[in-house]
Amino acid sequence: MRSSVAIVEVSPRDGLQNEAVPVSTPDKLKLIATLITGRLRRIEVTSFVNPRKVPQLADAEQVCAALPSTAGVSWSGLVLNDRGFDRAVAAGLDEVNVVVVCTDTFSQRNQGVSTAGGIEIWNRIAARAREMRIRTTVTLAAAFGCPFEGEVAPTRVRDVLASCLAVAPDEIAFADTIGVGVPPQVDALTAIAADLAPGVALRWHFHNTRNTGYANAWAAVQAAEPGLPVALDASAGGIGGCPFAPNATGNIATADLVEMLERAGVRTGVDVDQLLGLDAWLGERLGKQVPGQLARAGRFAAH
Amino acid sequence: MRSSVAIVEVSPRDGLQNEAVPVSTPDKLKLIATLITGRLRRIEVTSFVNPRKVPQLADAEQVCAALPSTAGVSWSGLVLNDRGFDRAVAAGLDEVNVVVVCTDTFSQRNQGVSTAGGIEIWNRIAARAREMRIRTTVTLAAAFGCPFEGEVAPTRVRDVLASCLAVAPDEIAFADTIGVGVPPQVDALTAIAADLAPGVALRWHFHNTRNTGYANAWAAVQAAEPGLPVALDASAGGIGGCPFAPNATGNIATADLVEMLERAGVRTGVDVDQLLGLDAWLGERLGKQVPGQLARAGRFAAH
Repeated sequence: MRSSVAIVEVSPRDGLQNEAVPVSTPDKLKLIATLITGRLRRIEVTSFVNPRKVPQLADAEQVCAALPSTAGVSWSGLVLNDRGFDRAVAAGLDEVNVVVVCTDTFSQRNQGVSTAGGIEIWNRIAARAREMRIRTTVTLAAAFGCPFEGEVAPTRVRDVLASCLAVAPDEIAFADTIGVGVPPQVDALTAIAADLAPGVALRWHFHNTRNTGYANAWAAVQAAEPGLPVALDASAGGIGGCPFAPNATGNIATADLVEMLERAGVRTGVDVDQLLGLDAWLGERLGKQVPGQLARAGRFAAH
Repeated sequence: MRSSVAIVEVSPRDGLQNEAVPVSTPDKLKLIATLITGRLRRIEVTSFVNPRKVPQLADAEQVCAALPSTAGVSWSGLVLNDRGFDRAVAAGLDEVNVVVVCTDTFSQRNQGVSTAGGIEIWNRIAARAREMRIRTTVTLAAAFGCPFEGEVAPTRVRDVLASCLAVAPDEIAFADTIGVGVPPQVDALTAIAADLAPGVALRWHFHNTRNTGYANAWAAVQAAEPGLPVALDASAGGIGGCPFAPNATGNIATADLVEMLERAGVRTGVDVDQLLGLDAWLGERLGKQVPGQLARAGRFAAH
């Protein structure tokens, strides 16, 4: 069995982007500082999108300018287009996560282009990023289902991925953007990636909207070739909704995910104990109980 | 891959037993009637325990006397000792679920005997039940961890199981009573059962206390020999705490589990649409939001 996976912490970006209550820049930096203490080593800190559309992330440049220069931490930003990539580069980030939505309707609503248009944008950015030695992830969004077009067949995701390999990404991410995925889809997408892009690292983005997120994460850990780098997105406290899935209950929670993996013998490098306080802290700031459960139940104490 | 699993609905028993708000007998029967409408075909309706210790289930006999005679439904009751078995028989139930706790401390607190004492009780009941042609499940509780003794090694569960086979049970259940289990433990216990009791049906009881319940359920579906009958316990709305894990967030939710399985191509026979209203109904009666998420998020609509 695989002995380790990487965790990509996305609470500052996906966790916060749809929260109605504004979170201040200093509070975001405090969140990030705690994540660092918890030994998260890849952190998606913001999204370079239109601040009028996502006011919560309007301070992208300010957040990036204030990031600590912690050794071994890779800072990532979400990017939807060339303008976003320019901003991410100017902000000095280590890696960019470029989104290509697998269905046209969702792609149009999310970023104003068809899937084909999204693929073009990605291919352009991929070439520029390679020249600039910026690490890239291409995220295939709505890869498990679309709120507008319904089921998304793995063959469709396969076609999209096949068009995204002109310049190889450093990492391919499959996103269950609205939380409808189940483990056999994870297996199917793993096989597709292995076929089209053997040796390229995999990354997974799961929402726990319908209680399948952790099962999918475990399936992803199990499915990939043992030697292949695999990363799982997670969000402190399990925060993170989706504007197109209004009752969505968030990303899988970092502490809960790490506890499951570590108890299962899969190393993450994350120090769970440092993260447990974040659930209450985030709950206070967002004015609600966050979905993470480990902090409430407590870790299982060795006796 | 396995094409079907059975669901054992435990909300009337494990779901309610630790709820502080009393639920009336008519409301329990209304819950059971809705479960029948949802095509649940195995229902654990109550526990034959000391009514002073579990006042919520003090109406065990009344509930059983009022059960509908629905064709194809098997009614189960939880039993901790000979007295409980006598009551279950008198109440006319189809099957009994006898608990043997894998750790002495938990066993003493739960049912006043050591693990060895629990094994003796089970072996006595198993012999009597066979004569009476009553279907039996032996549940090995705290099989994934104990709130008092900590980690429970699979070898310990193996020893307990080995002592429970003098009269073969119709079904062996492994219970993650306090919600600390992870998928590799499911694999290990599956292998132990296959070794000691090949061909005996398996059943699993998972709590989602730390967000691992659905991943464990999926692991159980994956791990068992394809031809072996496998059942998964689940509770409407995901209700069901544990007195020894005060912040436990309940059993895995029936609707959420069924939706995951059916979307994964594993048939359950359950009609999810008939169950979704139960979450709000239970929430009103118990005075809290129940943990099930599917009813809140909505099923993923085909387009």
